[in-house]
Amino acid sequence: MAGAGAGRQDMKATVLVRPKAGILDPQGQAVESSLRHLGFAVEETKVGRLVELQLATDDETEARAEVERMCEQLLANPLIESYEIELRAAT
Amino acid sequence: MAGAGAGRQDMKATVLVRPKAGILDPQGQAVESSLRHLGFAVEETKVGRLVELQLATDDETEARAEVERMCEQLLANPLIESYEIELRAAT
Repeated sequence: MAGAGAGRQDMKATVLVRPKAGILDPQGQAVESSLRHLGFAVEETKVGRLVELQLATDDETEARAEVERMCEQLLANPLIESYEIELRAAT
Repeated sequence: MAGAGAGRQDMKATVLVRPKAGILDPQGQAVESSLRHLGFAVEETKVGRLVELQLATDDETEARAEVERMCEQLLANPLIESYEIELRAAT
Protein backbone atom coordinates (compact mmCIF):
# COMPACT_ATOMS: atom_id res chain seq x y z
CA MET A 1 0.00 0.00 0.00
CA ALA A 2 2.76 2.44 0.90
CA GLY A 3 5.63 2.19 -1.60
CA ALA A 4 8.65 4.49 -1.95
CA GLY A 5 10.65 6.12 -4.71
CA ALA A 6 8.71 6.52 -7.94
CA GLY A 7 5.45 5.44 -6.32
CA ARG A 8 5.62 7.28 -3.05
CA GLN A 9 2.22 7.69 -1.57
CA ASP A 10 1.01 10.57 0.55
CA MET A 11 -0.76 10.13 3.83
CA LYS A 12 -3.97 11.73 4.97
CA ALA A 13 -4.34 12.75 8.59
CA THR A 14 -7.55 13.41 10.47
CA VAL A 15 -7.17 15.30 13.74
CA LEU A 16 -10.01 15.39 16.24
CA VAL A 17 -9.65 18.22 18.76
CA ARG A 18 -11.90 18.07 21.84
CA PRO A 19 -12.27 20.20 24.96
CA LYS A 20 -10.68 18.31 27.87
CA ALA A 21 -12.96 16.81 30.52
CA GLY A 22 -13.78 19.43 33.14
CA ILE A 23 -13.07 22.33 30.81
CA LEU A 24 -15.99 24.66 30.11
CA ASP A 25 -17.45 24.01 26.66
CA PRO A 26 -19.85 26.88 25.91
CA GLN A 27 -20.31 25.77 22.28
CA GLY A 28 -21.35 22.31 23.43
CA GLN A 29 -23.75 23.79 25.98
CA ALA A 30 -25.31 26.04 23.33
CA VAL A 31 -25.74 23.14 20.90
CA GLU A 32 -27.22 20.91 23.60
CA SER A 33 -29.65 23.63 24.66
CA SER A 34 -30.70 24.26 21.03
CA LEU A 35 -31.18 20.55 20.36
CA ARG A 36 -33.40 20.24 23.44
CA HIS A 37 -35.45 23.22 22.33
CA LEU A 38 -35.94 21.41 19.03
CA GLY A 39 -37.26 18.41 20.96
CA PHE A 40 -34.22 16.13 20.93
CA ALA A 41 -33.36 14.31 24.16
CA VAL A 42 -29.57 14.61 24.27
CA GLU A 43 -26.92 14.73 26.98
CA GLU A 44 -23.22 15.43 27.36
CA THR A 45 -22.92 17.38 24.13
CA LYS A 46 -19.43 18.53 23.23
CA VAL A 47 -18.23 20.51 20.26
CA GLY A 48 -14.70 20.29 18.94
CA ARG A 49 -12.76 20.74 15.71
CA LEU A 50 -11.92 18.43 12.87
CA VAL A 51 -8.78 19.10 10.84
CA GLU A 52 -7.90 17.02 7.78
CA LEU A 53 -4.69 17.40 5.85
CA GLN A 54 -2.37 15.62 3.50
CA LEU A 55 1.32 14.98 4.13
CA ALA A 56 4.03 14.20 1.57
CA THR A 57 5.34 11.08 3.29
CA ASP A 58 4.52 7.40 3.32
CA ASP A 59 6.14 6.74 6.71
CA GLU A 60 3.39 6.46 9.31
CA THR A 61 5.71 6.97 12.30
CA GLU A 62 7.17 10.11 10.74
CA ALA A 63 3.70 11.36 9.77
CA ARG A 64 2.34 10.86 13.29
CA ALA A 65 5.27 12.71 14.88
CA GLU A 66 4.83 15.56 12.40
CA VAL A 67 1.09 15.88 13.07
CA GLU A 68 1.73 15.77 16.84
CA ARG A 69 4.07 18.74 16.43
CA MET A 70 1.37 20.55 14.41
CA CYS A 71 -1.14 19.90 17.21
CA GLU A 72 1.19 21.19 19.92
CA GLN A 73 2.12 24.29 17.92
CA LEU A 74 -1.10 25.27 16.17
CA LEU A 75 -4.01 22.87 15.83
CA ALA A 76 -4.87 22.42 19.51
CA ASN A 77 -4.39 24.25 22.76
CA PRO A 78 -2.85 21.48 24.88
CA LEU A 79 -3.83 23.27 28.11
CA ILE A 80 -7.54 22.89 27.49
CA GLU A 81 -7.89 20.55 24.50
CA SER A 82 -6.99 16.96 23.77
CA TYR A 83 -6.34 15.67 20.28
CA GLU A 84 -6.59 12.35 18.51
CA ILE A 85 -4.73 11.59 15.28
CA GLU A 86 -5.89 9.12 12.61
CA LEU A 87 -3.69 8.34 9.63
CA ARG A 88 -4.35 6.53 6.40
CA ALA A 89 -2.78 6.26 2.95
CA ALA A 90 -4.10 8.87 0.51
CA THR A 91 -5.98 7.24 -2.36
CA MET B 1 -23.84 6.13 34.23
CA ALA B 2 -25.99 4.77 31.42
CA GLY B 3 -28.87 2.43 31.86
CA ALA B 4 -32.44 3.17 32.70
CA GLY B 5 -35.32 0.82 33.27
CA ALA B 6 -34.17 -2.76 32.98
CA GLY B 7 -30.60 -2.18 31.81
CA ARG B 8 -31.19 0.02 28.79
CA GLN B 9 -27.97 1.38 27.46
CA ASP B 10 -27.41 4.84 26.02
CA MET B 11 -25.61 5.45 22.74
CA LYS B 12 -22.87 7.92 21.99
CA ALA B 13 -22.81 9.66 18.65
CA THR B 14 -19.88 11.36 16.98
CA VAL B 15 -20.75 13.68 14.11
CA LEU B 16 -18.04 14.88 11.72
CA VAL B 17 -19.11 17.96 9.76
CA ARG B 18 -16.94 18.89 6.77
CA PRO B 19 -17.13 21.59 4.11
CA LYS B 20 -18.30 19.96 0.87
CA ALA B 21 -15.82 19.54 -1.97
CA GLY B 22 -15.69 22.70 -4.06
CA ILE B 23 -16.97 24.90 -1.24
CA LEU B 24 -14.64 27.65 -0.08
CA ASP B 25 -13.00 26.72 3.24
CA PRO B 26 -11.31 29.89 4.55
CA GLN B 27 -10.53 28.27 7.93
CA GLY B 28 -8.76 25.41 6.19
CA GLN B 29 -6.81 27.85 4.01
CA ALA B 30 -5.77 29.85 7.06
CA VAL B 31 -4.62 26.73 8.92
CA GLU B 32 -2.72 25.43 5.88
CA SER B 33 -1.01 28.78 5.40
CA SER B 34 -0.07 28.96 9.11
CA LEU B 35 1.26 25.39 9.08
CA ARG B 36 3.43 26.18 6.06
CA HIS B 37 4.78 29.28 7.74
CA LEU B 38 5.75 27.06 10.66
CA GLY B 39 7.68 24.84 8.22
CA PHE B 40 5.23 21.96 7.78
CA ALA B 41 4.73 20.64 4.24
CA VAL B 42 0.97 20.07 4.12
CA GLU B 43 -1.68 20.07 1.42
CA GLU B 44 -5.44 19.97 1.11
CA THR B 45 -6.11 21.17 4.63
CA LYS B 46 -9.76 21.31 5.64
CA VAL B 47 -11.32 22.39 8.90
CA GLY B 48 -14.67 21.12 10.09
CA ARG B 49 -16.57 20.52 13.31
CA LEU B 50 -16.81 17.59 15.65
CA VAL B 51 -19.99 17.14 17.70
CA GLU B 52 -20.29 14.40 20.30
CA LEU B 53 -23.47 13.68 22.21
CA GLN B 54 -25.29 11.00 24.14
CA LEU B 55 -28.75 9.66 23.31
CA ALA B 56 -31.15 7.85 25.63
CA THR B 57 -31.73 4.89 23.33
CA ASP B 58 -30.10 1.56 22.65
CA ASP B 59 -31.59 1.17 19.17
CA GLU B 60 -28.92 2.00 16.61
CA THR B 61 -31.35 2.52 13.72
CA GLU B 62 -33.46 4.91 15.78
CA ALA B 63 -30.35 6.72 17.06
CA ARG B 64 -28.98 7.18 13.53
CA ALA B 65 -32.29 8.57 12.24
CA GLU B 66 -32.46 10.95 15.21
CA VAL B 67 -28.91 12.23 14.70
CA GLU B 68 -29.57 12.67 10.96
CA ARG B 69 -32.52 14.90 11.84
CA MET B 70 -30.28 16.89 14.22
CA CYS B 71 -27.73 17.33 11.42
CA GLU B 72 -30.36 18.53 8.94
CA GLN B 73 -31.93 20.92 11.46
CA LEU B 74 -28.99 22.27 13.43
CA LEU B 75 -25.60 20.57 13.38
CA ALA B 76 -24.74 21.03 9.70
CA ASN B 77 -25.69 23.27 6.83
CA PRO B 78 -26.59 20.64 4.20
CA LEU B 79 -26.11 23.17 1.37
CA ILE B 80 -22.40 23.56 2.00
CA GLU B 81 -21.46 20.86 4.49
CA SER B 82 -21.51 17.09 4.56
CA TYR B 83 -21.76 15.05 7.73
CA GLU B 84 -20.72 11.60 8.87
CA ILE B 85 -22.29 9.87 11.87
CA GLU B 86 -20.53 7.28 14.04
CA LEU B 87 -22.45 5.49 16.78
CA ARG B 88 -21.32 3.30 19.65
CA ALA B 89 -22.72 2.07 22.94
CA ALA B 90 -21.99 4.40 25.85
CA THR B 91 -19.75 2.73 28.42
